[in-house]
Amino acid sequence: MTSPLVECVPNISEGRDLEKINAIVEVVKQTPGCTVLGVEPDADYHRTVITFAGPPESVVEGAIALIEASVWLLDMRNHKGEHPRLGVVDVCPFVPLRDITLDECAELARTVVERLAQNGDIPLFLYGAAASRAERTMLSHLRRGEYEGLKARLDGSDQTHSNETKLPDAGAMIWSESVARSGGITVGARSILVAYNVNVEEQGASVAKKIGSIVRSSGRLLKSDAGGKIRSRGMLDSVQGMGVPVDELGISQVSMNLLDVERCPLHLAFKTCESLAEDHDTALCGSEIVGLVPLQAMLEAGRYFSPDATSDNALVSAAVDGLGLNRHHHFDPGKHIIEWALEQEGNI
Amino acid sequence: MTSPLVECVPNISEGRDLEKINAIVEVVKQTPGCTVLGVEPDADYHRTVITFAGPPESVVEGAIALIEASVWLLDMRNHKGEHPRLGVVDVCPFVPLRDITLDECAELARTVVERLAQNGDIPLFLYGAAASRAERTMLSHLRRGEYEGLKARLDGSDQTHSNETKLPDAGAMIWSESVARSGGITVGARSILVAYNVNVEEQGASVAKKIGSIVRSSGRLLKSDAGGKIRSRGMLDSVQGMGVPVDELGISQVSMNLLDVERCPLHLAFKTCESLAEDHDTALCGSEIVGLVPLQAMLEAGRYFSPDATSDNALVSAAVDGLGLNRHHHFDPGKHIIEWALEQEGNI
Repeated sequence: MTSPLVECVPNISEGRDLEKINAIVEVVKQTPGCTVLGVEPDADYHRTVITFAGPPESVVEGAIALIEASVWLLDMRNHKGEHPRLGVVDVCPFVPLRDITLDECAELARTVVERLAQNGDIPLFLYGAAASRAERTMLSHLRRGEYEGLKARLDGSDQTHSNETKLPDAGAMIWSESVARSGGITVGARSILVAYNVNVEEQGASVAKKIGSIVRSSGRLLKSDAGGKIRSRGMLDSVQGMGVPVDELGISQVSMNLLDVERCPLHLAFKTCESLAEDHDTALCGSEIVGLVPLQAMLEAGRYFSPDATSDNALVSAAVDGLGLNRHHHFDPGKHIIEWALEQEGNI
Repeated sequence: MTSPLVECVPNISEGRDLEKINAIVEVVKQTPGCTVLGVEPDADYHRTVITFAGPPESVVEGAIALIEASVWLLDMRNHKGEHPRLGVVDVCPFVPLRDITLDECAELARTVVERLAQNGDIPLFLYGAAASRAERTMLSHLRRGEYEGLKARLDGSDQTHSNETKLPDAGAMIWSESVARSGGITVGARSILVAYNVNVEEQGASVAKKIGSIVRSSGRLLKSDAGGKIRSRGMLDSVQGMGVPVDELGISQVSMNLLDVERCPLHLAFKTCESLAEDHDTALCGSEIVGLVPLQAMLEAGRYFSPDATSDNALVSAAVDGLGLNRHHHFDPGKHIIEWALEQEGNI
């Protein structure tokens, strides 16, 4: 007998101060029913991906507690990092893991936003399956201009947003000291995705940026001098991607979201980036799975790298080797593979 | 009142000896009802694209006369060129232009092969919509191993072809002196396509080859060390493509077939290649339309390069400028645009 299980993957705009990160994670751990499955700080992004799961009502409480703690502890006014962001919690998606639909997860996101809006001091945006209208579905549209552009959006001087994407869905609609600290917070719902970063052997991110815009499904926007616009598609299906430097390691990454890991398996993303890196006389140095990955995705990658392997363990091991998941990062199958992590936590 | 009109675009494996090329073109001109619309020799490819049109029965006679003349005048034994080829006439497609279906054009191709098979001294292959089975549809499959591999296919020692693609559909099934001269001849039917080559400012074709395999719809085949295989898709839809050097001009080309110019417009192909060339710190130097192009495709490119232009002439002119069709080659709208060429020929 199973029961509904929801994953929540908030990203907070703090990737360096472990004391603050731990304090924020702690409020989730203290929320009854919530199990923290991963905490992945990134100093260059200045951002931490936190993964937790539990029954829907518990995850709602955990998310609210996490957002309130982040608003309390973090401050956007001096925040600089490689990853685009709008506020102290820059994305807080609800993801259906078991016995719950995407629509029901969207309802959880709306509940969180309504509860937080009661104080009225944070600009709150709903995205993904929880978006209030089609134009607001894409996070990249809502986030255009990032934190630095938010003041202009609220005081009406912004020229880059349409009326459909400019303002928050709820909460603060006016710029203030507290909004300057928190920025805008984006809460949403989406299907499970795999956050997958491929490491490129280069300082800076010149090659990684080129690869990112070749592989991402949205491809490249191509303009004519006279203002004509057309878009090529990318080499990978259902993938968001961009190139970023990882100064800490002296490498760069093609940072991707595999939105449908059946359409774009891990090994396809890896080998396509590898082939494009070779075009530029450089090489890959492994890759990184941030957060959770479905077991099937690892098994499929394992079959590609080691067609003769049969057991799940041997296939996972072949995938870890083939994708170089331990080259610059650490991959613990018991923590990163959803099914195995849930087992370890007593099925939550 | 219109009548059925068919285009035939044979490619002959001679791109240097103008006397021979003219003699072969002449037999088409002498065929009642056939109008030659284009003759485009390419010395590097060692190949000439001939375009003619007319009523179905005339085009069948013209194609047979052209193939017989090519078998008589050309000799594959010392042929070397940049373009893959199997014999002296390497592709002879029938293309529906007006009031005729693709299936009816396939029937014309089969008629040509049956008539030529009566002599029995040429290996004849049917491809495209005229293929005798699904595995034989793709020219690249039938042509694998090229002219140099044909002997092994006929004497049974070939290991690269499956039984489905190895042998001719009709004509010679045994290697002989005359087969050594003619090679294999591929006759087929297809929808209208645009043969479109983008010029890259580089000697050799190192960048053009990379671009070709990124843009072509079939993308790149990615192998693991242990034999796993997976394919990325390319950035352009319904496009075949490869990079080739054009030593004559000291440049290279991304040589493409736009199989559906509505799905991949000319300007999308051009600008995508341009963007990828810039990745490699090189530039494009115009492009080339080989044979005919539908007026709509030129108008659409014109609207991209010059959104304010309105007349057909102004739009075509903007497309010619934007695509650089006169940079290294010559584009005569009255000869290359199907509708205008037909008008000039009195609607044939």
